[in-house]
Amino acid sequence: MSGEDAPAQQQNAEEQKQQQQQQESKTPAESPKTESKPDPPPSSASTEAAAADTPAPAAEKAPEEDTFSYRALVLTGYGGYDKVKLQVKKGKPALKSGEVMVRVKMCGLNFADLMARQGLYDRLPSPPVTPGMECSGIIEAVGEDVTDRKVGDKVLVLNRSGMWQEVVVVATTHTFLMPEGMSFEEAAALPVNYITAYLMLFDFGHLRPNQSVLIHMAAGGVGIAATQLCKTVNDVTVFGTASASKHEVISQGGVTHTIDYRTRDYVEEIRKISPKGLDIVLDPLGGSDTHKGYNLLKPMGKLVSYGAANMLAGQKKNLFVVAKTWYQQFSVHTLSLIQGNRSVCGFHLGYLDSETELIAQAMAAVMDLYRQGKIKPRIDSTYHLEQVGDAMRRMQERNNIGKIILTTEPMKEEEKKEEAKKDEEKKKDDKKKDDKKKEDKKKDDAKKDDKKAEEKEEAKKEEN
Amino acid sequence: MSGEDAPAQQQNAEEQKQQQQQQESKTPAESPKTESKPDPPPSSASTEAAAADTPAPAAEKAPEEDTFSYRALVLTGYGGYDKVKLQVKKGKPALKSGEVMVRVKMCGLNFADLMARQGLYDRLPSPPVTPGMECSGIIEAVGEDVTDRKVGDKVLVLNRSGMWQEVVVVATTHTFLMPEGMSFEEAAALPVNYITAYLMLFDFGHLRPNQSVLIHMAAGGVGIAATQLCKTVNDVTVFGTASASKHEVISQGGVTHTIDYRTRDYVEEIRKISPKGLDIVLDPLGGSDTHKGYNLLKPMGKLVSYGAANMLAGQKKNLFVVAKTWYQQFSVHTLSLIQGNRSVCGFHLGYLDSETELIAQAMAAVMDLYRQGKIKPRIDSTYHLEQVGDAMRRMQERNNIGKIILTTEPMKEEEKKEEAKKDEEKKKDDKKKDDKKKEDKKKDDAKKDDKKAEEKEEAKKEEN
Repeated sequence: MSGEDAPAQQQNAEEQKQQQQQQESKTPAESPKTESKPDPPPSSASTEAAAADTPAPAAEKAPEEDTFSYRALVLTGYGGYDKVKLQVKKGKPALKSGEVMVRVKMCGLNFADLMARQGLYDRLPSPPVTPGMECSGIIEAVGEDVTDRKVGDKVLVLNRSGMWQEVVVVATTHTFLMPEGMSFEEAAALPVNYITAYLMLFDFGHLRPNQSVLIHMAAGGVGIAATQLCKTVNDVTVFGTASASKHEVISQGGVTHTIDYRTRDYVEEIRKISPKGLDIVLDPLGGSDTHKGYNLLKPMGKLVSYGAANMLAGQKKNLFVVAKTWYQQFSVHTLSLIQGNRSVCGFHLGYLDSETELIAQAMAAVMDLYRQGKIKPRIDSTYHLEQVGDAMRRMQERNNIGKIILTTEPMKEEEKKEEAKKDEEKKKDDKKKDDKKKEDKKKDDAKKDDKKAEEKEEAKKEEN
Repeated sequence: MSGEDAPAQQQNAEEQKQQQQQQESKTPAESPKTESKPDPPPSSASTEAAAADTPAPAAEKAPEEDTFSYRALVLTGYGGYDKVKLQVKKGKPALKSGEVMVRVKMCGLNFADLMARQGLYDRLPSPPVTPGMECSGIIEAVGEDVTDRKVGDKVLVLNRSGMWQEVVVVATTHTFLMPEGMSFEEAAALPVNYITAYLMLFDFGHLRPNQSVLIHMAAGGVGIAATQLCKTVNDVTVFGTASASKHEVISQGGVTHTIDYRTRDYVEEIRKISPKGLDIVLDPLGGSDTHKGYNLLKPMGKLVSYGAANMLAGQKKNLFVVAKTWYQQFSVHTLSLIQGNRSVCGFHLGYLDSETELIAQAMAAVMDLYRQGKIKPRIDSTYHLEQVGDAMRRMQERNNIGKIILTTEPMKEEEKKEEAKKDEEKKKDDKKKDDKKKEDKKKDDAKKDDKKAEEKEEAKKEEN
């Protein structure tokens, strides 16, 4: 089961942490997000990395292993966007039997990565660690007993973590051959979003013709994947929530009824069109939205909860929002389910990493749909590894329509200079925002104090 | 929605109750379970019966309507087996548009009927009321606008209640034509068990080849239906719990691994064979068994809760057992579902009575499987209406393998005499059991008193 490899990882993470602490004592923690060169670097950030920490016997050490280096994003601690730093790892990762080494072209960004950065996702080993659940690239080396992959194969990779770097080492079972005509961007955009949407809609949801589905965050990666998959079934009505500026795009993508959740009560809007309710609700939000979704279900309806995006209220963990979302988190009694003939499901791909057969089946089905032209990942934007903070911000602030991609292609020098300028401005901007918040809080406190004083006065008056 | 017709029913039930109270003041409540002739009788116990209470205009009254009478089982109040009495109803039920009148041949007995008799099933209108969710028979009259049924059609009927009588009036949408070659017993055995098993396994469960299913009470009506339906999918492993004496029959019926839940821990037995757990658990028991079932689920596994049979501990409601089952009833948090990638569903056909399209689709699929010879209801035993108490006892004590059927065919005179003798003996037996229970309780109490006295002595000694 998926928990079995945890001790090894823990150990690895611990070792990495010690290395990181040594290194952090040399460089200031708030150093700008540019290439730092830790020494010695963790040799691999894949979940099977423990073995890579064992040094190869000195006699066998080839010169290449000394000179081999690659850039990797590393989460250095929980917190804001700047906690993910671009570093250089040295030394060629060792390949175990059944593993392949992939030269990464593109990586996918997911909501779980944002949660992980704030320390809200328990499937990522403790920092320092390389995040990232998916990437695409070309096989550069194969381990012993690997017969189904060869050097030069274009693959997409799905893994528990460690995909945001130029070189990854994974079991072949975590790689899938890219179909003809698929771009590396598409390949990196596909695994997490489409497998998630596929299993939720067709395994838990048992979607059939003439049914109705609610898709929250319909312009997000899973949202667009789910909409496209709904359209592979006849006469499915899709309700999609998104801010108004995204409605045109998601309508063209297949959403039947767009709802601006910022200005409308989506429950009311849905009841107007579909008084009996819905067959399937996909819920990435958690908290009170899960209750609403549950109450929107028809008899034989299914709610699939697959996240708690409501917990994310800023770039750093907001304990009040986390606690509120947690407190409001939905729990249900079987007698309520029986009386409503309802189903409540929970889904997260991150907890399915050991279910290789299940994933392979779903992937095969998704690939077939891609080949038939029925699905096509929509790329919102592509960022360099150096720009990972901007990429995360775009997702967190829900400005994307479709998938956000990280490319391993190095940034040009002039781009870097521009980026540095922008970074400075952003920092100033963030500082201003922080200062304003503090100012507002002071004002608020002052007002409260005034009010308290007034109340005391009142109380005194009444006493007299 | 299904609740909309409740007020009419309530009203009808209220009227019936008043009639019943008048009648009960004439006859002792403990009268033997033979034909009593209430006057005036409720004219129909179907859920659409409210209209039948409206007297037809006197001028139009045909003599037939005066002489028309039929036998009906009536639940006269909540309690033991003797609360269901055979009565005669007089007056021909009125037919509304879209309704048909069916001359009933056979009726099916279900677990919900046992729950209902104890007042544990809220879908049955208050007593006095005719129970029964399914029957088979021949159409005797059709209402206006009925084009899809004609007099003489053999049908099976699925309805919220009111099917345990010789004549029923229902909407045509609640009737289904019997396939060629199907007996009336089979037709009465099919609707509730097979639609329940079908929707649980294929809609909520999304059963696929190579999966594993746990079926509790595998020798019961739903259990046998579910086993047969599992066998329509390739390589499904069925774990079936039942007492040892039934194992041979259920093995022949398709159960892969039989487990005697009385002598074995079924969780352990299943883990031995299937360490990773199960894809689907069908749970009619409730209470602590739901927790066990949930913990047996694989990733992407589905638990379908469809009853609380654990609440039934004797022929009368046992408040302690009800409270215990209720207290232990399963409730689940979405975060637990997400981490386990699991689904928890609730099912009860009784709450789906307004979902005619859904039921019709499932029925069509089940009928197809019957025609292909892939499913065949197994009849455990057939009882006369007069023997409904025995029939219920057999089900409650879980002595049946397959479906228990009530036939409307009148009992022969000599059978009746024998029945009366048996009844006397059973009553004596029940009284003995009750006396023994009381005796045991007294002894227990006495022991407790002794113990308390001893404890007090001890305490005193210690104090000194």
